[in-house]
Formats: sequence, structure tokens, C-alpha cells
Amino acid sequence: MIPIKQDLENVYNRVKPYVHNTPVLESSFLNAQLGTKIYFKCENFQKMGAFKMRGATNAILQLSEKQKRAGVVTHSSGNFGQAVALAAKKLDVKAYIVMPSNAPVVKKKAVADYGGIITETKSTLAAREAASEKIKQQTGACFLHPSNDMDVILGNATAAIELLEVHTDLDHILVPVGGGGLLAGTALAAHYYSTNCQVIGVEPMDADDAFRSLLSGTIETNRSADTIADGLKTNLGDKNFPIIKNLVREIIRVDETEIVDAMRMVWERMKIIIEPSSAVPLAALLRENERFKNKKIGLIISGGNVDISNLPF
Amino acid sequence: MIPIKQDLENVYNRVKPYVHNTPVLESSFLNAQLGTKIYFKCENFQKMGAFKMRGATNAILQLSEKQKRAGVVTHSSGNFGQAVALAAKKLDVKAYIVMPSNAPVVKKKAVADYGGIITETKSTLAAREAASEKIKQQTGACFLHPSNDMDVILGNATAAIELLEVHTDLDHILVPVGGGGLLAGTALAAHYYSTNCQVIGVEPMDADDAFRSLLSGTIETNRSADTIADGLKTNLGDKNFPIIKNLVREIIRVDETEIVDAMRMVWERMKIIIEPSSAVPLAALLRENERFKNKKIGLIISGGNVDISNLPF
Repeated sequence: MIPIKQDLENVYNRVKPYVHNTPVLESSFLNAQLGTKIYFKCENFQKMGAFKMRGATNAILQLSEKQKRAGVVTHSSGNFGQAVALAAKKLDVKAYIVMPSNAPVVKKKAVADYGGIITETKSTLAAREAASEKIKQQTGACFLHPSNDMDVILGNATAAIELLEVHTDLDHILVPVGGGGLLAGTALAAHYYSTNCQVIGVEPMDADDAFRSLLSGTIETNRSADTIADGLKTNLGDKNFPIIKNLVREIIRVDETEIVDAMRMVWERMKIIIEPSSAVPLAALLRENERFKNKKIGLIISGGNVDISNLPF
Repeated sequence: MIPIKQDLENVYNRVKPYVHNTPVLESSFLNAQLGTKIYFKCENFQKMGAFKMRGATNAILQLSEKQKRAGVVTHSSGNFGQAVALAAKKLDVKAYIVMPSNAPVVKKKAVADYGGIITETKSTLAAREAASEKIKQQTGACFLHPSNDMDVILGNATAAIELLEVHTDLDHILVPVGGGGLLAGTALAAHYYSTNCQVIGVEPMDADDAFRSLLSGTIETNRSADTIADGLKTNLGDKNFPIIKNLVREIIRVDETEIVDAMRMVWERMKIIIEPSSAVPLAALLRENERFKNKKIGLIISGGNVDISNLPF
């Protein structure tokens, strides 16, 4: 059940008033160094600092009035929690955000600043799911999944739609893969809004569930996920994997040093703040430089939410 | 001898092919917080990471063919040295850069990467001037001053010209003041390219020579200059001060905590990397919030060259 182009059109028109059409930056240094043309779609400049704002906004806009009155609930220690809190605030909907009690203070503060109602739990998935379920029972709030939800996937697609509107002839778009919501959305956008743009997912070596899933044809999971790219530790889901399987031919894996080096290069050369997860696609480009020569590459900078007091360099 | 509008037009057309027309960013968070509209002219995204590229390029383009063959020389431990090296490289001119031997390795490396020929000296002004003079004698190279040179001042003006082309109705442009080259250039641009835009200089409390110079009517110097805004320690000069005296009515001074807080706010909220000197104008806006309410403010982000391994937060 792959969505049709009209679905994406509808989502794009629905979400547009609530999100930034983020700038697309180029680096003459990187272009010269790599012999490619790279277009960085800067979702680090998105409201709340990440593309997650797009999916969260679309999902909440799709609720019935009755559902909106009951509110939304999600569990997230990262950008999706902030995105749900901010999108809900803008749409005058209550947002219950379940967060592990050991989540960084800066992230709890961000959710609270956006008006999210925080419930703290143990950091296990079971505890977070139980707390979400309890809130759902008590309040009637609608549960939103950060990546395995078709409205979220379609909302995410709008970043690549904007990119392809300006740069119509990209050969590839490189996307970081965590739960698969951005990859699936981007693949849909490229499928309907380009003639020949192949989307490639990139993920950390130690969280390579998407790479293995594409090989085996079924959803594989990460046993460990020891990576600085903390947004990419999660597994694919049954809503996004069929899209990925259908439209994405390749996942590239990169190691931790490559991620930090790419992140540092973007900070130093492009003067923009990206989180480690966003550096993962550039890490692939830097390593596999030769095969991308003379190509036009779109690269989604997924977010810029880092603790600047605690950097890897 | 204030330059006329045609001088600025000529410089703009001359420099344009060699520099980026840098993006102008806005922050919905900051606009809401301050009740103003702020337009950040992002010279941190300029080639080599600072507005200095503009003045250096114009100055080198103004040399005769004979002068170009002999090369250029400057002494700088900061952005101007890098700018001269890169601009000279692009114009196929030799660049001799005198740097203090205790300059950060990262800055020496940047100059060397751009093809600059480095001479190391003691860090005193006398030693640096002597070394520059010696190179000038030996090679016939033309000395370029980072801020007190009319071609540099006019080159710097092009940043504000670009800003005013897009945002024609700014009430103010706030500019950091070090040697005064950016302030003088911006004041000229506002004078000729706006109807009623008042340019305000901002400087660190401990390097407030411009504030005192405007009061006394003569060039005052800094005895100490203990500030994190390392680009703003220098004094005004006899080329730029007459322009500043004529066209600028006010200099605001900010303290060190205000500078670091403003810098952190830009990093965290706007996700862009700015150097401490660039945070100085926002520090003034944050403190004197009330008087700038409902105004349209241009703010020149002068550069983004920081050592990311050595941050103040």
C-alpha cells in the first residue's frame, strides 16, 4: 500500500503553513574537494531544530476534532518528543511526552518549554511503552510513533519535496536511517517528484538494521547500537519497511570515526551546527568519493540538536 | 573625503564575481522573544568564513598589473590574513602573511592551505610591522591594512549593500567594531542604499576605543583589550574614522558575559557557528531590547572562524 502522489500533494499543502521551507546550502570547498555538487537541505534550521517537526505536524493535523481535544502522547528522549510538543502547542492540542528519567536536562527543558506535559519513567522500552499506554487509557490521547506511522512518514517527505522543487535533477539523495521514517518519506518524494533520483540510506555500522533488512527482505533488529549518532539507534517498522524495500536499493554503513570527522568538517567548513546523526550521509560521501564524482547529490541534514557543552571534539 | 555612491557601485560590481552573496537568516524564536524583526547577514558563510574576504578581494583587484606581479603583504593572526591569502590565490597573486609565532596552529594551517607564504615573528605590533616592512622592501609587495584602507572599507561595504538590496526598509544595522573597517563600510552602504537606516556600532567594554573616539572627536586607543571577541581588539584609523564620525551616531558597549550568552544563543537557537566578535551586536540587542521593539534590524554576522576544540561553553 504505497501512497500515491496525490497523498503527498495533500500533505505538502497541509503542512506548509506550519513549517519552514528550510534553506539549501552548498559548500564550494566540499564541492571542489569531492568533485560533486552537494545540496544540503538544512532541517537543522527547521522549527525546534529537526525534520521531525514535519511528521509530527502532519500527524496532529490529521486527527479528528474529538481526538485533538483528547491530546497526543508519545515516548521519546529525542527530537520527536520536542516536535510533538511544539506542533501540538501550535495547534492548541495537549501533548503528553514520556521521557526516560535519565534523559539530558537540556532535552527535558526543551520539551517543557514547548508546553509538553512530561512523564518520567525508566529508560527501558517496556517502561516507556507502559507509561504511554497508561496515559492513553487515562486521557484518551492518541499515540504518535516517531517513525512507523504513515502520517509521520508523509510529513517527513515534505523536506525532500522542497529540495526537489528547487533542484529537479538530483542523481541521489542521501538520508540517515534510524527508525526509517525519513528514509521512507524521502524515497516517496523522489519517486513522485523526480525523474531518476535514487535515494540511498546511510546508517552507523553498529546500528545497521536497515542494511541487513534490505538484504534479508524482512525487518531485522539491532542487538547493540553503540553509536554517537543517537537518533539512529532505533529499528525499522512495518509501515515504513515496505516502502523502503520497494523504493530503496542501497544502504551504506559508516563507522564512528567517519561520522565524527564528517560532523567536524561541516561545523568547520560550513559553519552550521549539525547533530551526529546528520553527519552520517556526508561520512558515506567522503568515503565513497569516487563513485559519486560529477553527480548531483541532495543530502538531508536531519537536525541540529546537540548539547554544545558536550561535544565529541 | 567621503566616497560617492558611484564608488560603491563600482566596487560592488568588481567584487561580486569573487564572493558569496551570503544568505540572510531569521530566527522566529528570537523575533518572538525580542518583539523585533532581525535579519542576520551571514558572513560566517562567506568564503574563508568572514566578511574580510570582501575587502581583501577589492584591494587586490585595485592593484596595477605590476603591483600584482610583486604580490601583497599583511600582518594578521586572524581572518584578514586568511582573506588576503585566499583572495590572492584566486587572483594569482603572491601573498606574504606575517603571523605571530604563537598564533594558533589552526590559523597558520588555514593561511598555508590558502597558499599564503607565512613569516613568523614575535607577537608585538612593532615586530610584525618590521617584518612586513622588510618583506615589502625585499619583494616590492604592496602592504594591505586590514581595516584602515579605503579599498578594504569599500569592499566591506558590499555585505550591507547586499542586505539592503533585499531588505530595503531596515531601521538599523548593528555592526561589531574592531579596527572600524566594517563599521565605516556599512555606514557608507546605509548612507547611499537606504532612506533612513541608522548604523550602530557595538564593541566590547574593554576595547571601547570607538565609543570614546566618537565622544572626543579624535581617535582614542585601547590601553588594554581583554575580551573574548578577539577580532575587536584593534583601534580605529585615520581612513575609517572620518567616515564613522560623519555617518555613525552611536556606539553601544557590551560586557563579556553578554557576548558569550549571545554567542551561545545563536549557536543553540539558530544552529549556526559564529565567532565571539559576531555575537557582540546581538548582545546589545538583547540588553537594550526595549528600545528596538517593533524595529527592523539588520545584523552583520562578521565571521565564523572559531577553534571548535576550545569553546567558551
